[in-house]
Amino acid sequence: MLEAVGALLLEAGYDGLTVDAVAERAGVHRTTVYRRWRDVGGLLADVLDAAADDTWSPPDTGTLEDDLTALCQEAYDALAAGATLTTALIAVSFRSPEAAAALSRFWADRYDRCAVVVERAVARGELPADTDARAVLVTATAPVYHELLLLRAAPDPALPRRAARAAAAAARAGTQLLSAGGR
Amino acid sequence: MLEAVGALLLEAGYDGLTVDAVAERAGVHRTTVYRRWRDVGGLLADVLDAAADDTWSPPDTGTLEDDLTALCQEAYDALAAGATLTTALIAVSFRSPEAAAALSRFWADRYDRCAVVVERAVARGELPADTDARAVLVTATAPVYHELLLLRAAPDPALPRRAARAAAAAARAGTQLLSAGGR
Repeated sequence: MLEAVGALLLEAGYDGLTVDAVAERAGVHRTTVYRRWRDVGGLLADVLDAAADDTWSPPDTGTLEDDLTALCQEAYDALAAGATLTTALIAVSFRSPEAAAALSRFWADRYDRCAVVVERAVARGELPADTDARAVLVTATAPVYHELLLLRAAPDPALPRRAARAAAAAARAGTQLLSAGGR
Repeated sequence: MLEAVGALLLEAGYDGLTVDAVAERAGVHRTTVYRRWRDVGGLLADVLDAAADDTWSPPDTGTLEDDLTALCQEAYDALAAGATLTTALIAVSFRSPEAAAALSRFWADRYDRCAVVVERAVARGELPADTDARAVLVTATAPVYHELLLLRAAPDPALPRRAARAAAAAARAGTQLLSAGGR
């Protein structure tokens, strides 16, 4: 069922995503779909919640800059391909409050899992102990989403490394910048 | 006419934005609207192009960090209010290729105008001469859009200053980070 939703979303967008279409694609009776989900927003929220229920964990390369670069590269690859499921889900989040809430939960979970990247850098002595992990992670990844998703700039393969380097440098510059005290 | 489009978009979103509704709101005959714009996408593109035709220029506070903070604050204020025209236009850009292209043009123009913020910092000796202005500006502003628009985090009044500080620190750290050579 959830695969059917993803496939339809990618092909036809939110406008093509009806309970009937999902039922047909998944090969089940429409009443089965209606019994479980009242509408498309709830269905999408479940798709996202299911996607979060995985074993994904951030890379461990041995340095902050390389860990951040790998995270930025993953986001870059998901967005630079054009009409991807990621882009489709973000587009839908502007139309369905349930999908928006589910996407927020999904991202909050991912940023929580990535905090270990900053904790390891602190343990290695790369960063001050009071570094704000989320602020570092958002500083690194936000430019990738901003350039590709909002500004719709031409994909620049140097972007993931550049964004990661800038965030790592800002974090190393210390407690007045991306620390809990700076919040 | 353009004011009518903005008002309708804010009230009813893209789904409420029809050529007929715009004509009624603007108090003109619908054939007048149809004669000028074939569809809603073209209409929206004109709204955005008209918005770019202004005398807006970035703040000149005397320091890079304060200039960047003012820019981040402007974006923050436009997004933190919730259902603003900015949010509505971004939402629409995911549904109308013409609106997406117009939004890209609008932002490219704004980032071009902001390059002077970095040029002044270079002239003051705050930054290396080969600093990539766009990279610095995107590093500063992207976290504001990312937190409020995509992650839908609770508005944090400390965010504009924190994002600006991080970008300024990364830029000061030099040529390997946010310089033209680093692209």
